Amino acid sequence: MTAAVRAATVAALTEHGWNGLAVEDVAARAGVNKTTIYRRWGGREALVADLLLAAADQGTALPDTGTLRGDLAAFTRQVRDALVAPANRALLSTLAAGGPDSSLAELGRGYWAARFARARPMVERAVDRGELAAGVDADALIVRVVGPVWFGVFGPGTAVDDAFVEGCVEIVLAGTAATGRR
Amino acid sequence: MTAAVRAATVAALTEHGWNGLAVEDVAARAGVNKTTIYRRWGGREALVADLLLAAADQGTALPDTGTLRGDLAAFTRQVRDALVAPANRALLSTLAAGGPDSSLAELGRGYWAARFARARPMVERAVDRGELAAGVDADALIVRVVGPVWFGVFGPGTAVDDAFVEGCVEIVLAGTAATGRR
Repeated sequence: MTAAVRAATVAALTEHGWNGLAVEDVAARAGVNKTTIYRRWGGREALVADLLLAAADQGTALPDTGTLRGDLAAFTRQVRDALVAPANRALLSTLAAGGPDSSLAELGRGYWAARFARARPMVERAVDRGELAAGVDADALIVRVVGPVWFGVFGPGTAVDDAFVEGCVEIVLAGTAATGRR
Repeated sequence: MTAAVRAATVAALTEHGWNGLAVEDVAARAGVNKTTIYRRWGGREALVADLLLAAADQGTALPDTGTLRGDLAAFTRQVRDALVAPANRALLSTLAAGGPDSSLAELGRGYWAARFARARPMVERAVDRGELAAGVDADALIVRVVGPVWFGVFGPGTAVDDAFVEGCVEIVLAGTAATGRR
């Protein structure tokens, strides 16, 4: 039932957006009773929270290739593959639409905290190996590498092929080393 | 009347999202007749298209500081300032939610084409001055510089202060020069 309700939430979100998301509609799509959803999940915020947790935790293992460059390239390819999936697009643009003061903001903060906590060990391992100076801002580095892919997909529709992704990694690593910027 | 209808469209979009955007609601908020909107603009796609054109063309002149670094820093600060405004957040996340096959896709393509056409001269002038190799991919460079700011604002809520913005510019310019990547 969890899978059916998640799929129904994604479908409802894709069709109606957050503002039009209704528990009744999700229940009908999933073929379960509305009261079951309220009892097992709660309201629509809880449905989206559940999706976000599933997305943050999603299948793919954190890359561990032995180099920061290899790890970040594999990680950013994973992110790219996830972003082009319609279900994730609906979910992430729902969060983006929310803005810092919306009722979704709390959910968004939890989602992004989990995502970054999961990714940060790539950078920490590189510091341990001496590839990066201690004191690097791991989150900023990840934002700088992943950001162009995210913007490319959600904004202008840039072709985010493997060469573009690898360029993101190499340019940010070389530029960070050359400038000493964090 | 144009300003009132634009403001009403932004307000309706912020409250209901694209899926819930209704011409009737925009008309009521703007205090004009629904038929006037249909006659002067067309349907809701035309209302959003009008907003996008206004946003793409928006006030701020393209920076011309004499260096690519200075131009990109000023430009990216302008983008940052625009992104944190709630009206633009509603608009851009509406486009992002659309996906390449939605009814909004055509509008989005026009908007981004206009934005990049407007920004590209910064890079072309730098090539003319010999700051960048001819054959650089201007759009990719802009995506790499602006992307982390965009992702930071719409995603994890990164503090995109001036130091972060300047870091985006310097890291990408130094990394592009060092790697020869486009």
